[in-house]
Amino acid sequence: MTTSKPFPKSFGLLLFPGFEVLDVAGPIEILNCLARREGYDDMNLSVINRTLDPVSPGPVPPHTAGKAFTGNQLYLPTHSLDTAPEIDVLLVPGGFGAFDLNKTNLEDYIDFIRDRYKGSDGHKPLKYLISVCNGAGLLAKSGILDGRRATTNKDFWEEVAAYGPKTHWIAKARWVTDGNIWTTSGVSAGADGVIAWLASLIPKEIVDDVVNGVEWFRAKDADNDPFAEHFGRRDIAPVEA
Amino acid sequence: MTTSKPFPKSFGLLLFPGFEVLDVAGPIEILNCLARREGYDDMNLSVINRTLDPVSPGPVPPHTAGKAFTGNQLYLPTHSLDTAPEIDVLLVPGGFGAFDLNKTNLEDYIDFIRDRYKGSDGHKPLKYLISVCNGAGLLAKSGILDGRRATTNKDFWEEVAAYGPKTHWIAKARWVTDGNIWTTSGVSAGADGVIAWLASLIPKEIVDDVVNGVEWFRAKDADNDPFAEHFGRRDIAPVEA
Repeated sequence: MTTSKPFPKSFGLLLFPGFEVLDVAGPIEILNCLARREGYDDMNLSVINRTLDPVSPGPVPPHTAGKAFTGNQLYLPTHSLDTAPEIDVLLVPGGFGAFDLNKTNLEDYIDFIRDRYKGSDGHKPLKYLISVCNGAGLLAKSGILDGRRATTNKDFWEEVAAYGPKTHWIAKARWVTDGNIWTTSGVSAGADGVIAWLASLIPKEIVDDVVNGVEWFRAKDADNDPFAEHFGRRDIAPVEA
Repeated sequence: MTTSKPFPKSFGLLLFPGFEVLDVAGPIEILNCLARREGYDDMNLSVINRTLDPVSPGPVPPHTAGKAFTGNQLYLPTHSLDTAPEIDVLLVPGGFGAFDLNKTNLEDYIDFIRDRYKGSDGHKPLKYLISVCNGAGLLAKSGILDGRRATTNKDFWEEVAAYGPKTHWIAKARWVTDGNIWTTSGVSAGADGVIAWLASLIPKEIVDDVVNGVEWFRAKDADNDPFAEHFGRRDIAPVEA
């Protein structure tokens, strides 16, 4: 196997109540395809919830709309926030459960993201941090997007950007990279971001093979974002501290 | 609310060991967005496995590649094949677990699909049956694609088509409709198929709103299938009985 750069092995997927299904499944599908391939089949994944209870994309109280549909989708975590092992790459989805972060109590998740990104409590710092959709709001609330460029969901653009007043929010972006942090736009953009992230690390032929195998209509360029225009979004510059 | 046709309420999602994550999540994401909307929030979903045990997209023995990654993804069913309630719309994903149907024992799933499609054991027949990727192989093995047009995954085209020798397999197709059966191409095509299916039933404005909300790069036309050409696939005519 020839890789352009050392490829990380240990992945973590953070799930909170009310996560968005495709925010998770887009990146995970791409990574699943890679993990089945010779040379990459030592990749491992930890699925991390607050506790070991099943976690659902269903509505978080007091919301109830769609509960009989979305609430019956239940994912089993492998680890809690307290027991999660060392992680090289942390995936943070968005979802309605992370929409109103001033009312929703996700402080423990936000602390987890900050602690693992920086490395603390004896844990090594993450090699990469990837958010999808308004998962960027969790990163922003943790403070680690301060002074950085990032993007997020285009439908709820200003609402999410408000969690990161010291962040430069790029509107016309399927994904944005700043150092080892990759933020992606809404829902489906997560897969394109992870595809681009892979393409920065492993041979192009393997990435193309995965993309064709899943018959994905790929956005190859980071600024291929028709949804910024659709929703009329503009960049939001950071507020000076 | 104005709908073009009566919209079905009760959805079933069939999960077998080794299902493909995005085969499931593409359609489910689209339907989740609909289920959250006023006028559609009485939709319900049953997640159906052989038993009530958690079910994983991980490799099915004797295969092991990628197990530490894919095998840690665990979905909890709400019903077993035996306890599944009445269903209007059944979603059948594909995945490597349904690849070699002559060796893999999925006969009970195949019987379930046939019985529910036709209606038997006191159950009403399905209103719609939707397959993604090589989920079409399960439909074909059940006999219900005999004499019909269908499509499936473009990467493993001939292998899946072989399960339906009396089916006309359409190569250049993101999805194919024949009566109330919708078969879609590989993995990502499931979302486009479900979007098209919705567009046949509910107002266009609602469908567009969902698609834009999830920032999906949509294939609007059934024959928008660059992957048929990429893999060099051609139609496969049915063998005369």
